[in-house]
Amino acid sequence: MEKNAVFPKLNGLAHGGDYNPDQWLGYPDVFAQDIDAFKKAGINCVSLGIFSWASYEPREGEYHFEWLQHVMDTLYENGIYTILATPSGARPAWLDKKYPECMRVDAYGIRNHHGDRHNHCMSSKIFREKLNNINTLLAQRFANHPGLIMWHISNEMGGECFCPECIAKFQEWLKVKYHNDINELNHAWWTTFWSHKYSCFEEIEPPFWNGETSILGLNLDWKRFTSWNMTDCMNSEIAAVKAYNPDIPVTANLMNFFNGLDYREMAKDIDYVSWDSYPRFHNDWETFDDTMRELACSHALFRGLKPDRPFMLMECTPSLVNWQPYNKLKRPGVMRLQALQAIATGSDTVQYFQLRKSRGSFEQFHGAVIDHAGIDNRVFREIAQIGADLKKIAPVAGTHLKADVAILFDWDNRWAIQDMKGMIYDDKKYERVVIEGWKEFNRAGAEIDIISYNDDFSKYKVIYAPMLYIVRPEVAKALTEFVKNGGQLLCTYMTGYVNETLLAHLGGFPGEGLSDLFGVYSEELDTLFPSDRNHIKFADGTVCEVKDCCEVLKVKDAEILAAYTEDFYKDTPAVTVKKHGKGSAYYYAARVSAKDMVPIFEQMCKDAGVTLEKMPETITRHVRYGEEGTYHFYLNISNQSAEVCAVKGTDLLTGKAVSGNISLEPYGVAVVKAE
Amino acid sequence: MEKNAVFPKLNGLAHGGDYNPDQWLGYPDVFAQDIDAFKKAGINCVSLGIFSWASYEPREGEYHFEWLQHVMDTLYENGIYTILATPSGARPAWLDKKYPECMRVDAYGIRNHHGDRHNHCMSSKIFREKLNNINTLLAQRFANHPGLIMWHISNEMGGECFCPECIAKFQEWLKVKYHNDINELNHAWWTTFWSHKYSCFEEIEPPFWNGETSILGLNLDWKRFTSWNMTDCMNSEIAAVKAYNPDIPVTANLMNFFNGLDYREMAKDIDYVSWDSYPRFHNDWETFDDTMRELACSHALFRGLKPDRPFMLMECTPSLVNWQPYNKLKRPGVMRLQALQAIATGSDTVQYFQLRKSRGSFEQFHGAVIDHAGIDNRVFREIAQIGADLKKIAPVAGTHLKADVAILFDWDNRWAIQDMKGMIYDDKKYERVVIEGWKEFNRAGAEIDIISYNDDFSKYKVIYAPMLYIVRPEVAKALTEFVKNGGQLLCTYMTGYVNETLLAHLGGFPGEGLSDLFGVYSEELDTLFPSDRNHIKFADGTVCEVKDCCEVLKVKDAEILAAYTEDFYKDTPAVTVKKHGKGSAYYYAARVSAKDMVPIFEQMCKDAGVTLEKMPETITRHVRYGEEGTYHFYLNISNQSAEVCAVKGTDLLTGKAVSGNISLEPYGVAVVKAE
Amino acid sequence: MEKNAVFPKLNGLAHGGDYNPDQWLGYPDVFAQDIDAFKKAGINCVSLGIFSWASYEPREGEYHFEWLQHVMDTLYENGIYTILATPSGARPAWLDKKYPECMRVDAYGIRNHHGDRHNHCMSSKIFREKLNNINTLLAQRFANHPGLIMWHISNEMGGECFCPECIAKFQEWLKVKYHNDINELNHAWWTTFWSHKYSCFEEIEPPFWNGETSILGLNLDWKRFTSWNMTDCMNSEIAAVKAYNPDIPVTANLMNFFNGLDYREMAKDIDYVSWDSYPRFHNDWETFDDTMRELACSHALFRGLKPDRPFMLMECTPSLVNWQPYNKLKRPGVMRLQALQAIATGSDTVQYFQLRKSRGSFEQFHGAVIDHAGIDNRVFREIAQIGADLKKIAPVAGTHLKADVAILFDWDNRWAIQDMKGMIYDDKKYERVVIEGWKEFNRAGAEIDIISYNDDFSKYKVIYAPMLYIVRPEVAKALTEFVKNGGQLLCTYMTGYVNETLLAHLGGFPGEGLSDLFGVYSEELDTLFPSDRNHIKFADGTVCEVKDCCEVLKVKDAEILAAYTEDFYKDTPAVTVKKHGKGSAYYYAARVSAKDMVPIFEQMCKDAGVTLEKMPETITRHVRYGEEGTYHFYLNISNQSAEVCAVKGTDLLTGKAVSGNISLEPYGVAVVKAE
Repeated sequence: MEKNAVFPKLNGLAHGGDYNPDQWLGYPDVFAQDIDAFKKAGINCVSLGIFSWASYEPREGEYHFEWLQHVMDTLYENGIYTILATPSGARPAWLDKKYPECMRVDAYGIRNHHGDRHNHCMSSKIFREKLNNINTLLAQRFANHPGLIMWHISNEMGGECFCPECIAKFQEWLKVKYHNDINELNHAWWTTFWSHKYSCFEEIEPPFWNGETSILGLNLDWKRFTSWNMTDCMNSEIAAVKAYNPDIPVTANLMNFFNGLDYREMAKDIDYVSWDSYPRFHNDWETFDDTMRELACSHALFRGLKPDRPFMLMECTPSLVNWQPYNKLKRPGVMRLQALQAIATGSDTVQYFQLRKSRGSFEQFHGAVIDHAGIDNRVFREIAQIGADLKKIAPVAGTHLKADVAILFDWDNRWAIQDMKGMIYDDKKYERVVIEGWKEFNRAGAEIDIISYNDDFSKYKVIYAPMLYIVRPEVAKALTEFVKNGGQLLCTYMTGYVNETLLAHLGGFPGEGLSDLFGVYSEELDTLFPSDRNHIKFADGTVCEVKDCCEVLKVKDAEILAAYTEDFYKDTPAVTVKKHGKGSAYYYAARVSAKDMVPIFEQMCKDAGVTLEKMPETITRHVRYGEEGTYHFYLNISNQSAEVCAVKGTDLLTGKAVSGNISLEPYGVAVVKAE
Repeated sequence: MEKNAVFPKLNGLAHGGDYNPDQWLGYPDVFAQDIDAFKKAGINCVSLGIFSWASYEPREGEYHFEWLQHVMDTLYENGIYTILATPSGARPAWLDKKYPECMRVDAYGIRNHHGDRHNHCMSSKIFREKLNNINTLLAQRFANHPGLIMWHISNEMGGECFCPECIAKFQEWLKVKYHNDINELNHAWWTTFWSHKYSCFEEIEPPFWNGETSILGLNLDWKRFTSWNMTDCMNSEIAAVKAYNPDIPVTANLMNFFNGLDYREMAKDIDYVSWDSYPRFHNDWETFDDTMRELACSHALFRGLKPDRPFMLMECTPSLVNWQPYNKLKRPGVMRLQALQAIATGSDTVQYFQLRKSRGSFEQFHGAVIDHAGIDNRVFREIAQIGADLKKIAPVAGTHLKADVAILFDWDNRWAIQDMKGMIYDDKKYERVVIEGWKEFNRAGAEIDIISYNDDFSKYKVIYAPMLYIVRPEVAKALTEFVKNGGQLLCTYMTGYVNETLLAHLGGFPGEGLSDLFGVYSEELDTLFPSDRNHIKFADGTVCEVKDCCEVLKVKDAEILAAYTEDFYKDTPAVTVKKHGKGSAYYYAARVSAKDMVPIFEQMCKDAGVTLEKMPETITRHVRYGEEGTYHFYLNISNQSAEVCAVKGTDLLTGKAVSGNISLEPYGVAVVKAE
Repeated sequence: MEKNAVFPKLNGLAHGGDYNPDQWLGYPDVFAQDIDAFKKAGINCVSLGIFSWASYEPREGEYHFEWLQHVMDTLYENGIYTILATPSGARPAWLDKKYPECMRVDAYGIRNHHGDRHNHCMSSKIFREKLNNINTLLAQRFANHPGLIMWHISNEMGGECFCPECIAKFQEWLKVKYHNDINELNHAWWTTFWSHKYSCFEEIEPPFWNGETSILGLNLDWKRFTSWNMTDCMNSEIAAVKAYNPDIPVTANLMNFFNGLDYREMAKDIDYVSWDSYPRFHNDWETFDDTMRELACSHALFRGLKPDRPFMLMECTPSLVNWQPYNKLKRPGVMRLQALQAIATGSDTVQYFQLRKSRGSFEQFHGAVIDHAGIDNRVFREIAQIGADLKKIAPVAGTHLKADVAILFDWDNRWAIQDMKGMIYDDKKYERVVIEGWKEFNRAGAEIDIISYNDDFSKYKVIYAPMLYIVRPEVAKALTEFVKNGGQLLCTYMTGYVNETLLAHLGGFPGEGLSDLFGVYSEELDTLFPSDRNHIKFADGTVCEVKDCCEVLKVKDAEILAAYTEDFYKDTPAVTVKKHGKGSAYYYAARVSAKDMVPIFEQMCKDAGVTLEKMPETITRHVRYGEEGTYHFYLNISNQSAEVCAVKGTDLLTGKAVSGNISLEPYGVAVVKAE
């Protein structure tokens, strides 16, 4: 285990999950049975108290921590560590009844009734006071417990609130951002349009669905504010628990490509990134291979939020979930494959939701390590196997991945694209373009990071920045520097249309000087109806199908690589490159499939000196590098056996030396420590 | 006519419908014309006053019953009897304006505006007071009218209310159910999950859509309460009208497989069950045969609510409705076929909505016996034919059907399945499974009752209990007794998962000892995506296609009849039987079409000694048994002629003796009194 | 230019569009650049101030008209005229904040938040006062400006409000309509149905979605009231601006087949009709030809609102819009074709939304004459071409079209059909039937007006009145007169079902004596499911497919032209005619495609002596007649070249004499002044 492993106390990788013993206080045998099962399954940590506020404080001011004390003590005595949650994931009924301002107000201005989970007002002073009180009591008592290894702040944060307290806070936030100058805001949001000009900050309301939804700058700032406000509330929780022991790290469990919060901002304030992963395996719209590669892309997203340290797979289901439209079982071996893929892509943990099925309520039929009927079943046996495997590959803990290729993905660009009026109005498919690009470039043999346009580009040799709609001057400058320093850059249609407050760049797209970098102007953006098609043709005769959109370009001083074959812009340029020394700036004006973009990508890698390690079709490879060794993960992401060539080292899972070809069974994995 | 006929005064079957002469008070000729038409059509009873509150009491405290007196008197003088409604089907505008608490509050907590029909608060004290007042005045004056033969309580009751009075009443109802012990409720609903624990009953709100929707036990109890509260309101109406003449029976017109109320509970408090039947004939998604068999299934449902007495076909349209997506005319002969099918399956009445078209408003183009343009038209002539036919088969009145086969169908099981989180999330198709089972087993030659899991099973030899998700101990015991006494029982996937408050059975499914009865455990429930398929194969080589879901079984001591052919549970058991003496407990772990389940059903009937009377493809047969005779109904449910063999007796419709084969014209019917 | 041209000051046709210089006050160079561009493009008028209330009055009582003065002055000095809007299209934020009653209340009774645009309460006294104030100030200062040529009242009016002020006003409106007699209203709306009877006008609420939606007469009167109230508010604006110079004409920009307002009533109060036109060119569900003919039909609709004078094409996009689901570019030449089609069909203007792209907010990517990057682009060059063309055809201004054929289309009939309960419940396709009829009859060679059933029929020789559901006695009489005077009339299924308040006609359909005119009764209306088909067969063997609906007829004294071929009404009449001297009354009982109705239409034209000028397939022709000449427009509505025969005169666009065949390039146009 390397020194930057997430949990030094565990001497390796974490294996655990959400556990709710407070649901079973009336069933005295259950806790002992569970500990026994945990040991059988190699569970070394549990997440406690995620929804326990009503157990801690069933009536205002009446506290019950004794059960938690007993649970943490007993677990610790049995070698099992605790990740303890702050209980803001759901509120007790008495709180909402007495202080209705704790409940959110919806986008029509109607206050919620009490219920469900993630729906507290992030601004409510009384809510924050009550939350701080329970967090402080929890920290006072448990922050120095020897079994405690991490705080888990709230649960899957998200959502908006349109209450008066939030509105006032938004107005204050805007005052700071716009230097208390309403005219600055009016210009930034271009409010003269449709007579939207404000005379003072107090007139500004959030985008109520039956109110002001048409100021794009307002919409975007509201999303930024909501994200900031949620983060601010999170930080108040972090402060409360760190006050009693600053050495205990904190995390927050994030959600896959979640739209509602700017995770890049949020990640700055937590010690480790963790996420909850619920892919839809074995579905009827894509191959298993596609599902697995998309999952690897998600891991890259979360890994990229704090690139200097391992992330955590905080939740996944041991068998099935119960809230998707079709709740299918994971096939035998798939949970193990998923677990080892997480480690392969940079996680130091494999954690489940949930360790024991709850007897009633919403998730009673969600998969769990321990079933209603106990542990004599396929699912438990597979989990126990994973527990054993994780012990075998424990040295991997704390190691890291390396990538020469990066894809840019940012939340405010995403929000801006979603709200952009034009093109395909309801779905511009930005996320899909990012993910499909990741998958196909990965299939071509690359390890790829997903980074922000605010990150340092100099670590990379090849950058793909699709649909870089918002461009600020410093980003344009950094991209230009990157290319001038020999970097390979690929951008697409819809690049550089607007600035940070969504004002269109004047003087032509892509703006902020990028038209010089690429040597092209985009004169028009054409959108295709669903059954419309165009094509582009390269010099070598390759023809690719175009859907969705085509930019009509004016080339200034770029080389034309491909041209349209149809419609009024037939024979005009569709793909161009402009060389800047060893660097290249590619512009792809039409939407083709990510697969069809691979040749350009391969050329970029070649020119950048990046070696693509192409694997057999159903094999993915990831490498974790540490001071004590290099670990090659070979994952067979199919239900057929497959061969991998030219492997050399020791397979930690079998303990055997391997040299030359190895065969992987369906869904099989090898973790080879290189010689 | 047998002694248990619904309306002794009518000397046979009732022929009538909804009639609204108060709409025509300003058209003096219309009433006389209508009576003339009724006589021509053999109409012997009418339903009056269903929406007449504003006619009775146009302003608070100002009453007008004189028009009703005149109508009932004149009808009676002309030999036509009255079914009189209580007027709670819709409220006058002055009532809602003065007492807004009479109007319901919706699931977001917003009070309705005045309008439409079925939307009074069932709890409102002022509403009940006002309703009691008008009902009392009506009963005082008309309960002993010689023309009155029945009270029709309200109209097509249904719906929910989330107002403060309903909330308080719900809390009281819960206190009674849970013995005033909030901890009992907390355990029953497993509220520790997601911090939902209540500290007192006053904290409990109904499942507001912007509130608490995730406690399954709460959701189910709220449905039970709403059904109980509606029934309670109905009972207050019954008490008001029975006070002046307890001998007049009451009914309430129910709706086809209506989801909102537990009709089994409701039926206990009325004297006769009646229902409103609006099948979609001649549609473009199923055969006419299918439509007719599904309609027979519906009749079986309502017949089963009070199995000891005939039911009533309270409403059907003489030609078309005007509120379905496509409002197609019934083809010539189909109304007659539908009328005689109702009698064949146990109804003692054929009643229409409506006798005369209303000149304006919502249903002005709904079919009626009397058209805007009078009675010189096809529809009226067909109704008159039915009137004549009903007189010919009058001896059938008061007779009953017999069935050895039953299908279980219960409302709380249905609600629990709908709200179950898992499997196919949005549509588990419970009703469809019940109906398709009924249709195919009927096509195989069986008369089938639809009963509750609380009913006495000993009357039956074969029971099909699909998706018996909720199992209480006494139900498990009764099913076990049934099998041990020689009964043939067929259950399926999703049997015995939860108890009455939706807590999962611990120790394995099916719970409550049923795994001993069937000799199997269900270890996992796999759900298939829409285009996924599996198959099961029987020993004789028969292969059936599987959709939607598959349970993975552990067999303890059952015989395996079929196994899966694909996927990781290939070759594991899919259909089993465990014999208990002469009794058998079949378990069907996969969802196949009802047609594919027929061989098992036939085997069960054979083993139970139940004779299946298989008819030609488009003929259905039902038999009504009375003290004075046995009546065989042969219905040709197709638009082609068909032959029936080996008939012997007198066809009451033709008055002729029949012996041997008879031919039925398209949509034709024979009613043969057996020799 | 004829004397009844819209803008005498322009000496020909107007070329202009919406212009928002107040958005660019902080960009001093822009205005001068724009004027330069306008001159290059032949722009001679602009529409100003449509959303400028917040620019005029940024705080209550603080006024800024100086920028407008500068803009109008400078434009005028450069030969560019102004159409000045009243600014009620959107309200400043301070107004809604201080006077929330200016904001509408929605159909659930919830008041809007501030935002978007067209959402003021039309009844609010304070809103009208504030609006009158700003309009008065505007008119005082600018009504006599030499550059002012028209007032543009508000913008794209529409929508409903359910606030207390509107409810009270509705009740007053009903009192007037129903002579302060609640019983008259009760009868007219047939409120006895479902106990809807009112005891006083104060009990009446509008059709709240959670209230009274089932009284059809109420629903229709509410639409009439809303339309009247919007018109009333418009009239208050007109009065304010006319007070200072009654000679300046007013218009209001209408929307294509807009459902929400009775444009026939509204048009009476404005001087010129103008409309905003956003067809979806090059889509993937119809041919370009279809799109263009439907657009011509829309022009006919607006032309018909004030048949004695030219209309205005107030808005269209120079390239694309940004709010449709797929925002495709107009292909080269299509904007010009569209512009010249507008002139061909009776417009005296070609105006765009927008002259310059707004830098931010909702429409920043909507097409414009001047792009973010300036005017060196395809779009601007095409606009400049149009500017030049319009100058060449300037003599057309003020001329008019002639038509012998009319189609009836009325808003209250439309609303009544939409709300009619029956047939296909959700979509009776009335508008589609009107439009497809227009297109096919136009393709057959006819110029067609779209008129009201209240218009003078004597101007026409052939009238098509599909689905004339509402028939008042005077309309029945006028149609009868029309036929008796030799007119050719074609009606269809669903004719004459109800009167003006939606009471069904008693005594048979079509009512009000029309069954005598046609010689038929409609006994039943059958609706077909989507995949159902029937057919009708004519004496000459022609067979046409029937979808959606079939009436079953009783023929009294009409000639039968076609009969059904299937179902129970096989061989019964489907199409009939009754001759009245030279006049004919055709009845088409089944829904066939408009194309299949063309032979009947051609027969009618032949009998009426109307010559059909059939063009080559992709050519449309329109003729404008003036005192100084006759102008034949030939439009090639395809992307292929096409020939037109037998043309004689001078092509104004080329300046050349033409005689015999002319060839039109793809999307090409010839405007031939006849010799």
